[in-house]
Amino acid sequence: MTEFAAQVQAKIDQKTKPPGSLGQLESLAEKIATAQQTLTPTLSKPHVVVFAGDHGLADVGVSAFPKAVTAQMVLNFASGGAAINVFCRQQGMDLTVVDTGVDFDFDPNLPIVHGKVGRGTANMLESSALTPEQLGQCVDQSESLVAQIAADGCNIIGFGEMGIGNTAAASLIMSALYDLPLEVCVGRGTGLDDAGLQNKLQLLRQVRNNHTPNSPEEILTAFGGFEIAHIVGGMLAAASLKMLILVDGFITTAAYAVAYAINPDIENYAIFCHSSAEQGHEKLLTCLDVQPLLQLNMRLGEGSGCPLAYPLVQNAVAFFNEMASFAEAGVSDGNAHSQ
Amino acid sequence: MTEFAAQVQAKIDQKTKPPGSLGQLESLAEKIATAQQTLTPTLSKPHVVVFAGDHGLADVGVSAFPKAVTAQMVLNFASGGAAINVFCRQQGMDLTVVDTGVDFDFDPNLPIVHGKVGRGTANMLESSALTPEQLGQCVDQSESLVAQIAADGCNIIGFGEMGIGNTAAASLIMSALYDLPLEVCVGRGTGLDDAGLQNKLQLLRQVRNNHTPNSPEEILTAFGGFEIAHIVGGMLAAASLKMLILVDGFITTAAYAVAYAINPDIENYAIFCHSSAEQGHEKLLTCLDVQPLLQLNMRLGEGSGCPLAYPLVQNAVAFFNEMASFAEAGVSDGNAHSQ
Repeated sequence: MTEFAAQVQAKIDQKTKPPGSLGQLESLAEKIATAQQTLTPTLSKPHVVVFAGDHGLADVGVSAFPKAVTAQMVLNFASGGAAINVFCRQQGMDLTVVDTGVDFDFDPNLPIVHGKVGRGTANMLESSALTPEQLGQCVDQSESLVAQIAADGCNIIGFGEMGIGNTAAASLIMSALYDLPLEVCVGRGTGLDDAGLQNKLQLLRQVRNNHTPNSPEEILTAFGGFEIAHIVGGMLAAASLKMLILVDGFITTAAYAVAYAINPDIENYAIFCHSSAEQGHEKLLTCLDVQPLLQLNMRLGEGSGCPLAYPLVQNAVAFFNEMASFAEAGVSDGNAHSQ
Repeated sequence: MTEFAAQVQAKIDQKTKPPGSLGQLESLAEKIATAQQTLTPTLSKPHVVVFAGDHGLADVGVSAFPKAVTAQMVLNFASGGAAINVFCRQQGMDLTVVDTGVDFDFDPNLPIVHGKVGRGTANMLESSALTPEQLGQCVDQSESLVAQIAADGCNIIGFGEMGIGNTAAASLIMSALYDLPLEVCVGRGTGLDDAGLQNKLQLLRQVRNNHTPNSPEEILTAFGGFEIAHIVGGMLAAASLKMLILVDGFITTAAYAVAYAINPDIENYAIFCHSSAEQGHEKLLTCLDVQPLLQLNMRLGEGSGCPLAYPLVQNAVAFFNEMASFAEAGVSDGNAHSQ
């Protein structure tokens, strides 16, 4: 244990509570203090970025919803009516929505970031979802955006996504990254029935057999999508800026897994928000050996877990900074010695 | 399904999200709307009440902490330094601390509710923890307090406790109420080691053998404590006033179980906040067939789970009231028909 780590642990153990009794909030406070290298951590201008993009594979049917819903939901985000809008407002978090490649012409005045890399990714049955050039563009755009958000004073950023068909992409990434059979990686997404799930699984087996990516970058290029590539780039940028990173559900965790494979240092900044009801997410979290803060049986995406978990992050920082110590409060600490 | 229940479900299903995708937040919104019998529920002046009391049995050693800590922690609550203070401040919840029977003479000017029923309960090895008269006093006091808080405009109230030795009382209540062996009901409390746990279990077996209570009221009288009896009375009063009830950890859930045995209608108002690390709590939640919102491996008490879970309650109400419907947002709902 480093001297600083010992100081953090001592500060937690001197609080007026039985040792360890705040459970995950204690490890969270420790992570935040360590990420910020301070005994008085702060949270500043919390921000959620939702990246939206379409998937070529969605045209052949891997979702309970039609592809047009990606664009419709971007319009819903822009007018403030979606779950992520409501939750961010509720928690006082800023929200930025990015068109990374939705198959729709948005009004240039729509209050979103216009970063269209293409009109949906390519159909993975025929080619890689992204070209290497598109991957570079996604990463560059996202790095710039995160740098700008950091420059505005944000030190904690959440990542979300919208893209009909993107649980398929996330499942393929997971399967390739950890060499896992598709059966354990593929789920019902927004609500496929049994027949739909079997159809999705069969399609993804074909896709998987057509591609033999090796590196994390090749996996990302093969299976996409634009919004996932943006999240990977954005997370790596956030970690390099020492920002705390809120990781939401299945797709965002798949993006995190790619980023982690590229730079494991990201682990020191990542806070896992929610264990999704999507089959595959729990297994993915186990592969990463991480424990999310919430298990609410949700399967929405949009980064919705970020604002829901954020109050727990605030409370972790608050107890670490504000709770009285045994000595300050004159409370017996339960050990033989007095403090 | 009643007509009103169908209206609530329809409102949830018309929101711009896959059906069911907000998981536990959907059932929570449904519970709140039903409790308030309105399609536009509100949360008003959220309040946590922490009841503190001492236990005669604590003198013979059932806790990792000395009995004096109950009074010390009440002073800590009064000066704002404990976890429950920090969390309530963070979430904008009011906090009231009640001395129900701490074995200490508090300054009458201390900003707490002075409701001392005795200086700790009686030693359960020798007699019932409470007399029937004391039980009546606890229930009356708590009813008055809750009625006053409701009159001040609160419609959601959380219950917490502080009392060295009170996991022992809660375990005995649970064992008697559900006719369960003490082994599955007794845990380490604030942090007993293996020897301490065995000692606690042996003591509680003696206590259990000395008492044969039948009704919920007799169980409460036999095993106490003053703070637990206050919570039972407070919860029953809150339900009769149609207030939402935040139920925290093991001891509060044991109090809830007694209240539920007296009046099952309380279920319609109860929101379970946190599944504690205390052995027995998960089993108790299973007996009650309820699913808490949080599992953070905490074991602190003080009602600390109430402010931690409260933002989820706020978000449940917010999505129900504020999210756009498919029709409002012009989003395809994934079914063949258009809305």
